[in-house]
Amino acid sequence: MRVNAYAAPAAGEPLAPTTVERREVGANDVLIDIEWAGICHSDIHTVNGDWGPQPFPVVPGHEIVGTVSEVGSDVKRHQVGDRVGVGCMVNSCGECDNCRNGDEQYCVKGMVGTYAATDHDGTTTQGGYSTHVVVDADYVLQVPKSLDPAAATPLLCAGITTYAPLRKWGAGPGKKVAVVGLGGLGHMAVKIAHALGAEVTVLSQSLKKQEDGLRLGADHYFATSDPDTFEHLANSFDLIVNTVSAKIDVDSYLGLLAVDGTLVNVGAPGEPLAVNVFSLLTNRRSYAGSMIGGIALTQEMLDFCAEHEIGAEVEVIPVDKVNEAYERVLASDVRYRFVIDAKTIA
Amino acid sequence: MRVNAYAAPAAGEPLAPTTVERREVGANDVLIDIEWAGICHSDIHTVNGDWGPQPFPVVPGHEIVGTVSEVGSDVKRHQVGDRVGVGCMVNSCGECDNCRNGDEQYCVKGMVGTYAATDHDGTTTQGGYSTHVVVDADYVLQVPKSLDPAAATPLLCAGITTYAPLRKWGAGPGKKVAVVGLGGLGHMAVKIAHALGAEVTVLSQSLKKQEDGLRLGADHYFATSDPDTFEHLANSFDLIVNTVSAKIDVDSYLGLLAVDGTLVNVGAPGEPLAVNVFSLLTNRRSYAGSMIGGIALTQEMLDFCAEHEIGAEVEVIPVDKVNEAYERVLASDVRYRFVIDAKTIA
Repeated sequence: MRVNAYAAPAAGEPLAPTTVERREVGANDVLIDIEWAGICHSDIHTVNGDWGPQPFPVVPGHEIVGTVSEVGSDVKRHQVGDRVGVGCMVNSCGECDNCRNGDEQYCVKGMVGTYAATDHDGTTTQGGYSTHVVVDADYVLQVPKSLDPAAATPLLCAGITTYAPLRKWGAGPGKKVAVVGLGGLGHMAVKIAHALGAEVTVLSQSLKKQEDGLRLGADHYFATSDPDTFEHLANSFDLIVNTVSAKIDVDSYLGLLAVDGTLVNVGAPGEPLAVNVFSLLTNRRSYAGSMIGGIALTQEMLDFCAEHEIGAEVEVIPVDKVNEAYERVLASDVRYRFVIDAKTIA
Repeated sequence: MRVNAYAAPAAGEPLAPTTVERREVGANDVLIDIEWAGICHSDIHTVNGDWGPQPFPVVPGHEIVGTVSEVGSDVKRHQVGDRVGVGCMVNSCGECDNCRNGDEQYCVKGMVGTYAATDHDGTTTQGGYSTHVVVDADYVLQVPKSLDPAAATPLLCAGITTYAPLRKWGAGPGKKVAVVGLGGLGHMAVKIAHALGAEVTVLSQSLKKQEDGLRLGADHYFATSDPDTFEHLANSFDLIVNTVSAKIDVDSYLGLLAVDGTLVNVGAPGEPLAVNVFSLLTNRRSYAGSMIGGIALTQEMLDFCAEHEIGAEVEVIPVDKVNEAYERVLASDVRYRFVIDAKTIA
C-alpha cells in the first residue's frame, strides 16, 4: 500500500509531501494508523546527512503513536483499536544474547532503525511522518489509555533514552541526580528522575529556564556558565545524565560526582572528548553511555509514566510547519518537544 | 626515635642511607619492626618528581610487612608479635561519609599517604624503606600467618589496587575479565580474578610473557600489537582492568566490552585521553577508575589471598640494590615485584 508521508528528498533539503510504500501486513505485523509523530534532534541530523550518507528519500520520525487498524494472524499482543507506539527500532535478530536479554538496541547483528535502515526483507524503513506504518508486533508498544497521546509520543525516544540510564544507575530515593541540559531529553529526565524519588538538579547553561525546571520536578537549578557551580557542587552527585550532545568539558562534570558516581551520556558529539583519568580514579567514578532501551524496558517506562501521570511538554504542529520546527529545534526554541499532528499529513 | 631508612635526598637523585624520626607510640599507635618493603612504580614517580614537588628527603615504600613490637594503650586490633602490613595510607579523617563507608582512600579531607604526605600532627610521613614505622592502629592490617610474608608484601598496594575493581565490578564465575598489562599490578589482577572464578584473558603488548600469564591463572593470552586481537575479541568482556598507566587508545579497548561492560583504569597517564562517546553508547559501556581500596576491603583481600594461597611473584633484594631495581622497574625487567629485605637496612 502507498501512503502519504513527509520526506527529505536529499541531504539538507527541506521536507516535502510524498508517498511511500508500506509492506503488506504479515502474520506477525501490525498496521498502525499514525496519529502523532514526534520530532527528535536525530531526525534533523539524519536528514542533514550529519551521520553519513542515507538512502534518500528519508521519512523521519521514531516517536510514533497511533491506533491499530489491522493485525496479522499470529499477533497476540495487540488488537485492532489499541493505542500503540513505535520508538527507534522496528526489528532485530531476536536470537542473540543481547536480544534475549531485552537489549534489542544492542543486537549483535544490528537493530533495524525505524527509518533510513535496511529491514530484514531488504527494504528501507521509513518513519513516522506519515499516515500509516506496518511494524512487527514485537516492536510495538502499548500506550496506556490514561496518557494523553500527543504528550506520550516523545516518550518513545526521549522518554526511554532517559528512563534507561536513570533505572540502570539506580536513580531513586536518597540519590542525587543531575540532568545536564533542559531540552527534549533533559525535561523528560527531570520528570522521570523526580517521579523515581531522586533529588534532582538541573545543570543548564543559563538560568533562563529555571522556573520551568523547578515546575517540572527539579529540586535545584544551576547555571554551568557560572564557574562557582562546579566548585559548589563538587563531589555531590550519584548520577549525572548528560543530555547535551555538544562537546563538554568531561572532567568538570566528573568532578561533580561522589564516590561510585556515574556520568552518563545519552548522546554523542561527533568528535572525541578529552578525559583526564585522574578524574575517574578520584571517587571511583565512571563515564558511561546509554542508547535508548529495549522493548520490555520501554513498555515498563510507558506504564511508569502512566502511573505517575508523566508526559512530555509538547507543541503540536501541522506537518507543513515541520521545516520551521527543525529550525526552531536547532535554535533550542521549543519547550520541549514538537509533535506533528499526523491527521494533517492525510 | 630515629631509625635507619633509605631516602631520595632530592628529586631524581639516587636513594641513599639516612635516618628519619618516628613519632612516639601514641595511645592508638602501633610500632612495627619492618621486615619487607615492596617497590611500587609510584615510589619511582614520587622520588623523580613526576607527580609534582615533594617534601624531600622522601623515604618511599607503601607496601610494608613486619611484626608489631609495641602497641599503644588503646589498641585492641593488634598485639605485640602480630605480623601486620601497611599499605598506601596511614590516616584519614575517619568522620566523613567516605571514611565511614570504608572508602578512606576517598576521605573528603584527603587521605594521608604513607610517605611524602602531611599527617594530622603536621609531620611529613616517611615510608617503608626503613627499619621501623609507627602507624595508627586503624590503618594497620593483619597479615594472615599462612601467607609468605615477602610474597604478601605487594598485596598491600598491587593486591588491593586490583582486588578492589575486580570485586566492585563483579569478577566471578561466568564473567569474562581481561587484564591489560602483565606487570606488578597485572600479575596480581590475573591471580585474583582467576581465584574469584572469572575467565581471565591477558592483553599484553607481545606474547613474551604468555607462558607466565597462563601459569599465573590466565585462560587466554593475546598480543595487543596484533590488530586482529581487537577484532577477534570485540564485544566480549564484562570487565577490563587496565593496569598500564601509559596512554592507550581507549576506544579500542572499549570496543572489546560486551553490554554493560566496564573498562577500569587503576593508574593514570599524565595527559588526558581521547574518548569517542559512541564507544560508550554502544553496549552501554563504562570507563571507570579505581584507586587502591579501603582498610576493611584490604583486610578482606589479605584474607582472600590467604584462603586461595595467593602471593605476588617477587624478587627479594637487599636495600643497596634499590637504585638498580628502580632502573629495572622502568625497563619492565622484573617478574613481577621487587621486595626489599628490610634487615639489610639495619
